[in-house]
Formats: sequence, C-alpha cells, structure tokens
Amino acid sequence: MKKLINTPESVLTDALAGIAAFHPQLRVDTGNRVIVRADAPRTGKVALVSGGGSGHEPLHGGFVGPGMLDAACPGEVFTSPVPDQILAAAKAVDGGAGVLFVVKNYTGDVMNFQLAAELAADEGITARTVLVDDDVAVQDSTWTAGRRGTGATVFVEKIAGALADRGADLDKVAEMAEKVNSASRSFAIALTACTTPSAGRPGFDLPEDEIEIGVGIHGEPGRSRGKLKPAKELVALAMDAILTDQPLGAGDKTIVMINGLGGTPLIELYVVAAEVAAVLAAQEVRIGASLVGNYVTSLDMAGVSITVCRADDEMLDLWAAPVATSGLRWGS
Amino acid sequence: MKKLINTPESVLTDALAGIAAFHPQLRVDTGNRVIVRADAPRTGKVALVSGGGSGHEPLHGGFVGPGMLDAACPGEVFTSPVPDQILAAAKAVDGGAGVLFVVKNYTGDVMNFQLAAELAADEGITARTVLVDDDVAVQDSTWTAGRRGTGATVFVEKIAGALADRGADLDKVAEMAEKVNSASRSFAIALTACTTPSAGRPGFDLPEDEIEIGVGIHGEPGRSRGKLKPAKELVALAMDAILTDQPLGAGDKTIVMINGLGGTPLIELYVVAAEVAAVLAAQEVRIGASLVGNYVTSLDMAGVSITVCRADDEMLDLWAAPVATSGLRWGS
Repeated sequence: MKKLINTPESVLTDALAGIAAFHPQLRVDTGNRVIVRADAPRTGKVALVSGGGSGHEPLHGGFVGPGMLDAACPGEVFTSPVPDQILAAAKAVDGGAGVLFVVKNYTGDVMNFQLAAELAADEGITARTVLVDDDVAVQDSTWTAGRRGTGATVFVEKIAGALADRGADLDKVAEMAEKVNSASRSFAIALTACTTPSAGRPGFDLPEDEIEIGVGIHGEPGRSRGKLKPAKELVALAMDAILTDQPLGAGDKTIVMINGLGGTPLIELYVVAAEVAAVLAAQEVRIGASLVGNYVTSLDMAGVSITVCRADDEMLDLWAAPVATSGLRWGS
Repeated sequence: MKKLINTPESVLTDALAGIAAFHPQLRVDTGNRVIVRADAPRTGKVALVSGGGSGHEPLHGGFVGPGMLDAACPGEVFTSPVPDQILAAAKAVDGGAGVLFVVKNYTGDVMNFQLAAELAADEGITARTVLVDDDVAVQDSTWTAGRRGTGATVFVEKIAGALADRGADLDKVAEMAEKVNSASRSFAIALTACTTPSAGRPGFDLPEDEIEIGVGIHGEPGRSRGKLKPAKELVALAMDAILTDQPLGAGDKTIVMINGLGGTPLIELYVVAAEVAAVLAAQEVRIGASLVGNYVTSLDMAGVSITVCRADDEMLDLWAAPVATSGLRWGS
C-alpha cells in the first residue's frame, strides 16, 4: 500500500487538521469530528447536516458552507459517524428552525442518524431525515437494505441547501430534498478496487481485464463482472440501467454528474461525458446543468459514476444559486 | 491498461466532444483542437492563451473562461500543441490588445509557442510569452532546459487573467505573469507512475516500497528514489526544497496549492495540507489563499505536488477576483 499518510489510525484526524488550516471559513471540532461553517448557527435558517464514512471526499466536508451544508460528520474511512458526533453537529448549527439530516442509505448511517435525531429531540432540536437512495445497480447490498445512496447526495445537498438559504421552513426543505432524491438515478462502474488505509490492500480482486458493473462506493458488488469495453459500450450499459428505471423523453431537463471515483483521470471523465451527452441527445433530453469531476469518491478506485436528475425549473434555479464550499463554489 | 476510453487514438477528440457537450459557455473547435470562451474575442482585452500536452486536466482547458484563460490548446497526451493550433487560438481570441501565451517550460512547448508567436505577428497579432518554470526539483530534465513548469501555471493563469479582466495592457499583464512565476516554487513526489493511453503501461518502474522524489508531471525523474515515508517526512523534504530555493519569513503571505497528481484521494491531500501548514506556521508564514485538489495532474499518477507563491496584496486581491471556469470558479 502506498499512501500519503502518517499512520492508518491517524488519517481522519490528520485530514481534519488540514481542513482546519486551509479553510478558515470552516470551524473544525477535532474532538467531535465535526466540520461546521464558521458563521453557524444561522438564526432562523434550517440547518443541513450530512455525514458518513470518510473516503468519499469532497463528500461531505467539502460541501459545508453558505448555500449547501451547515455541518458534516465524517466517520472513520468507510465507517458510519456515531450518534454523539451527529448530535454535536446538530447542536452546533441549529438556529431554531430545525435540522435536516441528509443520509445516504447505508444501514449504519441510517441507524446512527436516527439515534442522533432522538438525542436531538431530547435537547429540543427538531431533526428530520431525508434518505438518499439513488443507485439503481442493485436492490439490497453489503451494507444496505434497499438501494444505496451515492451521487444524488450532491444534488440533494446543493438544491435543498439553496432552498434553506432562501428561508424555507424545515418541511419545505425536507420535501425538496426528497423530491431531488426521487428524481435522481445513479450507476457506477469500477475498473479497479480501492484500498483503505487500515486494510492496506484492495477491497476486492478484479482481474486485469475485468470491471465491476454497478459497483458501490465502498467496493460493494454490483450487477456483474464483465470484460473491459470501450467507453461507449460502458456508458450504454450505465445509461440503460438509469433510463430503464426512470425513462426520460423529449424536452425533459436534467442535471447530470459524471463523477470520478478517485483514481480516474479527468480526461477520461470527459470521454464518458461525450457518450452520455450522445445518449441524452438521441432522446432529445436536455442537460440543464452538470458536474464533471471527483465529487463522491471511493478513495483511489478507478472508475466512474453517472447520476441523472430530472430537474424542473425550480430545481435548476436552486442549483444555480450561489454556493461557497471547498468542493463546489460559484457566485451569482 | 484499464481506461475509460474508446481507443487510445481518439482520447483527445472524444474528450473535446465531452467538453463541448457539458460546457456551453465554451466554444470547442474540434478541428483545430482549441477551447475558447464562447464570448471571445473581447474587444480591447488582453487575451490569455495557454496549452500543452493533454493528461494534466483540468490544466489548461478547465481554466478557460471569464477571469482566467481566453483559450487553451491541448496537444495529444504528453505532446506539445502545434504552431498552427496555437495560431488558431490566438486568432480566435485576439481583441486588438494582444495575446499573452502562458507556456510551461518544456522544449517542445517553448518552440511551438515561439513559432506561433511569429505566425501571429505575420497576421498583425502581438503575442508575448511568459515562461513558467517553478519546479525546484531539478535543473534540466528529460524534456526541459532549465526548470520545469508545473503548479505555478495555475497561479499565473488566475492572477494574470484577473488583471487582464480589469483592463490592464499587454505589458502590464505579462509583467504580472512573470512576477507570479518568479514568486512561486513547486516540488512533487510520485508514489506510482502514470500510464498514457498510447503506451498502455506505466511510464517508469517504481518498486512497491519506493517513491520518486521531485518527479516531473510526465513522470520525468526527480532528485532521487527513496523509501515511502510518513507524510510528515515527505512534506519536510518537499518544503525544504522549496524554502531553500526561496526562503520565507515571519509575516510573509502566500498562496499555497496542495495538488493531487490524479490518482491520490483528497483525504490524503488534506493529510499533506496539515503538514505543510505546520511547516509554514513554524516560520510564521501566512497562508493567504489556497487550493487543495487536482489541478495539474499526471493522468492516474498517485502523488502530490506542493506549490508556494510569495504573494503581495495585489496578487491576493487578483486571486480573489471572480473566475468562472470549469476547473476554478467563484464569484465576487
């Protein structure tokens, strides 16, 4: 294993120190392992809190800031954050209007955010949860009942975050978050396995000419193994899975993310992007907004995930609203 | 070799199609292989043009847009763009105020941009060149006389781009570009070699427990091979090289980039960031602005480069000016 770390045990603590040093607009509570926007709590604003295992950066810490998350709770690599940690985040950001937990659908995450919501209620904080479960590859998986939550998390955090910024109440923000999740579908393909610092070797074995079709963001098995194929054929597989689950037609508008899993060069993501655009154009589906890059990673895994959200004008407008995080940043 | 491509020969063309489809704010001339901001030429504005071999994305195409480059000329992977291509870019963006070529110091790039400048002059376009040569690892290298140009290119393109946006003339923009380059130093460490699509195998052999200290962005040899060490020790090596070449002291302000070479997880870059911050803090050097992520990559190489620019208030002010590119984007 070759990694730029000090020790496998100190990766998260060390990374949090780096985030604190390089992003003065964030407040990092190293003890509780919580990343909070420095101006929290914002009185009267619904606060968004997300979290999950580390190793998917910039998700979630990279999305803390004005227009998106108020706090993130990173667990150890590929390990859920604990309830007390999530509670500490909720307390740090609650401005009296309640807290929305954005939770990817993994059993440990779901359970710990649920416990945190109960602890928060005991302290007088109203917390609602939205589950993200956009991955159409498989029903149930290694750590999941139902569908896994992946790329749509970025869309949920951005769009619901913008609505919270505009002063919507907790019910409205939660409703929008659920709407974005319901409108989104993802599918991922891995060319290589990833290596966690603690394991020190790849999470699964993948022969030199094979790929994992429908892989999860921790390396969970997908639908099948297959031979490496040209990008055009891989995109056809992925888009077929996505569009079979949610058909799109002429005039539909979308937000599309071509997401690198951590070890894939950006130039390859653009090769994939071209093929995705061709599939959508053939159906006269419009790309209203998009991201191409590393947003929900699996450490050093080579591969790509594609996320397509059928977006209405309100969602596109909220997408375009200003955001100022280390992972996603633009002005009005 | 596992890559998300159609064929090794079509990588650049396919990627350009993806850029065109996903970034409507850009105009992609696929024939000439030129990426231009869609509103070019801007009358009276000095135009910035950069380019070089592909494989370093988002450099340079990802930095085309308001506040940064007016055009980029991507060559084939790790291959210089040709003079006619650069000329086409200059013609597409010249608004009568002249063109600044931002050129990384590699012999092929230098020669071809020089030829393009002569061709441009024949067509009545004034082109000036700034050479970027910030890599302190080695003097002369596989494809370079003098120092290699690496991470400082991002600083030059952002800061000179902002000055051009404010209406400065060609001499002033060129002077600022040179000032930024002179104030910047970089050093890179590779954990693995990268694989070009055409070669199909790693560019050099690196044993499982060894690293290349001072590596170039095409895998050129650095100062030495060494055993993999904890991040703290690797950062000490890199920062010693940087600070020996340009000492910094109490109260100095800097722009710092912790740059992933393509295959390194972001969480590891933050581990490195923490160590860099500690070295600078010990010398009472301030981090006035920073980037942590993949900005100047070497395809799928695992590793990191560190770039430190001693920045005055004008440079920091220009750094903070709005920019709207796919690779770097923020509002005022």
